[in-house]
Amino acid sequence: VEIEKMNIENCDACNKTWPQENYRIADLGESIAYLHHDQYFPGWTVLVLKQHATELFQLSVEVQQKLILEVSRMAEVLAEIYQAAKINYALLGNVVPHIHWHIIPRLTEDPVPREPVFMHQHETKLLTDANLEQEIAKIRTQLKM
Amino acid sequence: VEIEKMNIENCDACNKTWPQENYRIADLGESIAYLHHDQYFPGWTVLVLKQHATELFQLSVEVQQKLILEVSRMAEVLAEIYQAAKINYALLGNVVPHIHWHIIPRLTEDPVPREPVFMHQHETKLLTDANLEQEIAKIRTQLKM
Repeated sequence: VEIEKMNIENCDACNKTWPQENYRIADLGESIAYLHHDQYFPGWTVLVLKQHATELFQLSVEVQQKLILEVSRMAEVLAEIYQAAKINYALLGNVVPHIHWHIIPRLTEDPVPREPVFMHQHETKLLTDANLEQEIAKIRTQLKM
Repeated sequence: VEIEKMNIENCDACNKTWPQENYRIADLGESIAYLHHDQYFPGWTVLVLKQHATELFQLSVEVQQKLILEVSRMAEVLAEIYQAAKINYALLGNVVPHIHWHIIPRLTEDPVPREPVFMHQHETKLLTDANLEQEIAKIRTQLKM
């Protein structure tokens, strides 16, 4: 499906086929936070906008401003939990063009500290159900949610 | 220099050694916009925060909210000029950990439309001085600055 043809009817985020419900962390207000399925980079989290839009400038000023505070809050929570050296923030949407923010803690033991995570070939690291629940619980606790 | 050692004294953005002044587009308020030196992806623009900070959550709520509106405004301007299919927004800071947003128009003729630009190996495309001035002038006109 080409981006320009994408809309609420055929959008994986709107159809709730992505992300999967078991990765859900919390409802932050304008967005819902999910742990990224691939935890090769520990703590990688995705904030999915509740409404359908593809670009920031399609949103009201109020929603843009609320959303960035949700991104910032989650970044701070992840920085604290994972003791991150740096946080990466990315709104790409090249595959699912429904606004979602990648928030990626970069740890001191990061394999490619000076590169974007996207350049680093690796095997997907899926957590066990128990570990997934544990990570989500840690983030909820730090969020006080 | 390790990220944790980076501060205003040894920061390339604060020292004004990066980005180069001839790439400067405009002062947007909280940030200064520059055309990215590598124009392989046409219109790639960088917004550099005027104050020194490495993470969104170190900024006041007011600055975070002003900054995201500057990012959004520039994205809309670039989308219009370059007739972008999608805009990518990224705040990484893995090399220069001074807050700067990459705003990258993804065109319909993009070589890797479903991938982050960072994954695509390519030769740096430097513009001639005349072409650089021309691109900057187009963006300033669309910004009405």
